[in-house]
Amino acid sequence: MQRIEVYDTTLRDGSQGEGINFSVYDKLQIAKKLDELGIHYIEGGWPGSNPKDASFFREVKKLSFKRAKVSAFGSTRRADVKVEEDRNVRLLLEAETPAVAIFGKSWTLHVQEALKTTLEENLRMIDDTVSYLAGKGVEVLYDAEHFFDGFKDDPDYALKTLKVAWEAGARVLVLCDTNGGTLPFEVEEIIDRVWDYFNGSRDVVLGIHAHNDSGVAVANTLVAVRKGVSHVQGTINGLGERCGNANLCSVLPNLQLKMGYCPLNEEDLKKLTEVAHFVYEIANLRPNDYDPYVGRSAFAHKGGIHASAMLRNPRTYEHVPPESVGNRRKILVSEQAGRSNIVHRAKEMGIEIDPRDPRLFELVQKIKEAENYGYQYEGADASFEILLRNTLGENIDLFSLKGFRVIVEKREEGETITEATVKIDIENEVAHTVAEGDGPVHALDNALRKALKPYFPDLERIKLTDYKVRVLSEKEGTAAKIRVLIQTTDGEKEWGTVGVSTNIIEASWNALIDSIKYGLWKTINQKKH
Amino acid sequence: MQRIEVYDTTLRDGSQGEGINFSVYDKLQIAKKLDELGIHYIEGGWPGSNPKDASFFREVKKLSFKRAKVSAFGSTRRADVKVEEDRNVRLLLEAETPAVAIFGKSWTLHVQEALKTTLEENLRMIDDTVSYLAGKGVEVLYDAEHFFDGFKDDPDYALKTLKVAWEAGARVLVLCDTNGGTLPFEVEEIIDRVWDYFNGSRDVVLGIHAHNDSGVAVANTLVAVRKGVSHVQGTINGLGERCGNANLCSVLPNLQLKMGYCPLNEEDLKKLTEVAHFVYEIANLRPNDYDPYVGRSAFAHKGGIHASAMLRNPRTYEHVPPESVGNRRKILVSEQAGRSNIVHRAKEMGIEIDPRDPRLFELVQKIKEAENYGYQYEGADASFEILLRNTLGENIDLFSLKGFRVIVEKREEGETITEATVKIDIENEVAHTVAEGDGPVHALDNALRKALKPYFPDLERIKLTDYKVRVLSEKEGTAAKIRVLIQTTDGEKEWGTVGVSTNIIEASWNALIDSIKYGLWKTINQKKH
Repeated sequence: MQRIEVYDTTLRDGSQGEGINFSVYDKLQIAKKLDELGIHYIEGGWPGSNPKDASFFREVKKLSFKRAKVSAFGSTRRADVKVEEDRNVRLLLEAETPAVAIFGKSWTLHVQEALKTTLEENLRMIDDTVSYLAGKGVEVLYDAEHFFDGFKDDPDYALKTLKVAWEAGARVLVLCDTNGGTLPFEVEEIIDRVWDYFNGSRDVVLGIHAHNDSGVAVANTLVAVRKGVSHVQGTINGLGERCGNANLCSVLPNLQLKMGYCPLNEEDLKKLTEVAHFVYEIANLRPNDYDPYVGRSAFAHKGGIHASAMLRNPRTYEHVPPESVGNRRKILVSEQAGRSNIVHRAKEMGIEIDPRDPRLFELVQKIKEAENYGYQYEGADASFEILLRNTLGENIDLFSLKGFRVIVEKREEGETITEATVKIDIENEVAHTVAEGDGPVHALDNALRKALKPYFPDLERIKLTDYKVRVLSEKEGTAAKIRVLIQTTDGEKEWGTVGVSTNIIEASWNALIDSIKYGLWKTINQKKH
Repeated sequence: MQRIEVYDTTLRDGSQGEGINFSVYDKLQIAKKLDELGIHYIEGGWPGSNPKDASFFREVKKLSFKRAKVSAFGSTRRADVKVEEDRNVRLLLEAETPAVAIFGKSWTLHVQEALKTTLEENLRMIDDTVSYLAGKGVEVLYDAEHFFDGFKDDPDYALKTLKVAWEAGARVLVLCDTNGGTLPFEVEEIIDRVWDYFNGSRDVVLGIHAHNDSGVAVANTLVAVRKGVSHVQGTINGLGERCGNANLCSVLPNLQLKMGYCPLNEEDLKKLTEVAHFVYEIANLRPNDYDPYVGRSAFAHKGGIHASAMLRNPRTYEHVPPESVGNRRKILVSEQAGRSNIVHRAKEMGIEIDPRDPRLFELVQKIKEAENYGYQYEGADASFEILLRNTLGENIDLFSLKGFRVIVEKREEGETITEATVKIDIENEVAHTVAEGDGPVHALDNALRKALKPYFPDLERIKLTDYKVRVLSEKEGTAAKIRVLIQTTDGEKEWGTVGVSTNIIEASWNALIDSIKYGLWKTINQKKH
């Protein structure tokens, strides 16, 4: 079986993505993760383009990797200068990486419009730069920028640039779809032509670098491998300029689990989901739940029929086992869901119910009614667990609400004042507190905490991390029903709660109460065990 | 050139996506948009699965579409029952749609594991259901569920199910990759085998329904079309269960701009970006900026060589012109660009400004500050016009705010009471009013109208039609900044206003004031002319 080498450019091409900005420290963290995953090449940056990248290359030398080679990215020398006098080429060498990626122009349009030089000089620029760097004992990977577009305009010239790079000592010729406009069958046809040009000689090593502007970067990468390409470039989560690069989190499992290649070893592939989420965190992007293989919803089952068949035989609705990429199966409770979903969810919470238990029918009814009213338990596992335990006759309430009041007041151009009072019964005492806040919900949260803290010092650790508001049936304008979703953490676990009402304060309050109630019950429960 | 028909299942398969929950009103709004876009079929839901879908089909009949046929989704009859006695089949007929999509099992594993019936009975179920519905004069589309997986396990049986459905009167045989595990070259090989089976007879109409679990749903759809498939299914933004369905926002421009098919007409394709963002809004999902073609970053160019070459010749870095899908190129917007942009928008409002007018600088500054704070004028044309006119020294205020107060109070299990007081200066008098409401914003709206009605009887005609809340910087929990968008109508025109604050009441109030202010000013202005 042909060997596939994986070249990750999350730190270079990925960081070109809009809104993505890695610090040197971020980059070092990610590099370590990529090595743990078993990636062969890590492209660290473009030393010529900014000082941050230069300092990354100084720092990364201090790390020792189990497998990954670090690579620096740069362009061929400028037109009409000696290669040894080219600043960009000098900085590449100063990065002192075992490998460098040099991009050169394959597209006559770019040679003339962007570089504003002659086709002949462009060939000399490729030749000089590759042979000079190879001569210094550096492994040179040649990125044929805009290769596919260039080929469509002028195949002979595009192919010539590859030949020059190969003969100058490039170890790999990477065919780049820089603008991401090429479709899978075009990639296949053009790669056939490239092999013909080199008389099918397999000494030549080809690579693929795809962008996702047409939504087919992953497919383009896979069909290229089927055509004998053995060097694959991409980024974690498909980060990258415009619509991003080929997503390695889809490419790698497809190659490994479906096409019989082994870019990574089986155990390392199980780290994929963790690495994907880690990179989202570092990039400060919210993870895309719908990502193939690694997304939170990638193995989520909503339909009732689905779920029951799925539990009998996962193959019926799962294309691969979630564990193979370190992800997990998720059975959703929703109006489409049946009892089997609930039984399974309950089991996850450590609650055994007999599928024939009559209380289960009661629960299904409650959920249906709640969802008709506007509740949604998918993002609110804690509210669901409370509902479940209550239905099973277990009471987890540590306090009960006597009442609350919120006042929001504005005078002339003065600032808006928000005050909340809360009155609760707790351990046979009445706690009555008042607090201010940035807004009504914030004020209620502050007042409630003031009331509870004397009884539950653990409350300190419980923090709201996310607050979502969804207006249902918008056509009713300001009298519409409102759903509030709150995410809470105690530093270890996260849980979600939901509240619905035509009154946004009440909806928020309900979600807030569930979140605190659940958090306190959990901490006390854990202490018991 | 072969005709391609587009079948959208955003409202059915799309609503199976985790966290997606459309109201009947949401679904009707989306259906209208899909028809404007020129979609051929709109799958509205599964009448058998929940009451919400049934009521959608009642409502949608009242709408008239320029081209779209509405379709209802359901399964073949249950095993061992008469088709005319099958509840699900009955509900399908009661939906009274011109078309229905019937899914049947192609995979022996599913027949045995999920349906728990015999292979023969499954064939009868397909035959009975399709011929029964076709006999009722309904157009029947047959969804061959798990066709590709079924084919891999037992090609003969999978093909037999197609034959049965075709001979029973299905108009289209839709090959479904239900688990999304199939790769493009497998799709090509298997479709070849299907054509062989039907002796290449092109009377047979094939369709494709791809899921994105392998990250190649778009590619699978494109290669299927290249293999002669003429019916394409998918969803807007690729919404759908797990990793979603084939994203029509990528499939359609690829077919139209690159492969020479015309699923939509050229003018309609320009609505694609708007429709994509509309559906994200309704689904209350944050748009994915990196989406191919329609994402905000899809044509974003970072500065430097890139941008300058791009401006000389867009072809150098753009695979298609952004306008062709109604998107925009994004380059660091210079002050100059910002100003000409505003001059253009002002003209649309009938206001002539000299591009060198110093007040423009002031306005650009105000907008920048507002947008940094969290304002967004895209959905708030009226708030923008107010800002513009104020900056130009025109005062459109017919009243001024002295203050407001909102009290929300809850006691024990009693109902929540909401009371708002409003104090305004108007025509040198002070109006001080109080009102209750379903929620704080509703109460404020009522109190404000009470105060204004004596002076502006026209207020009757001004109604809020939409109220949206988006939490910015969600990570700050209940102290996060909140943006409220309000849509208002006077029966003829609609206008949008925006308010932002860490206090949801204040944010709503600001949007509310703008909406009423603008509405009154417009009616009075119209009377003048």
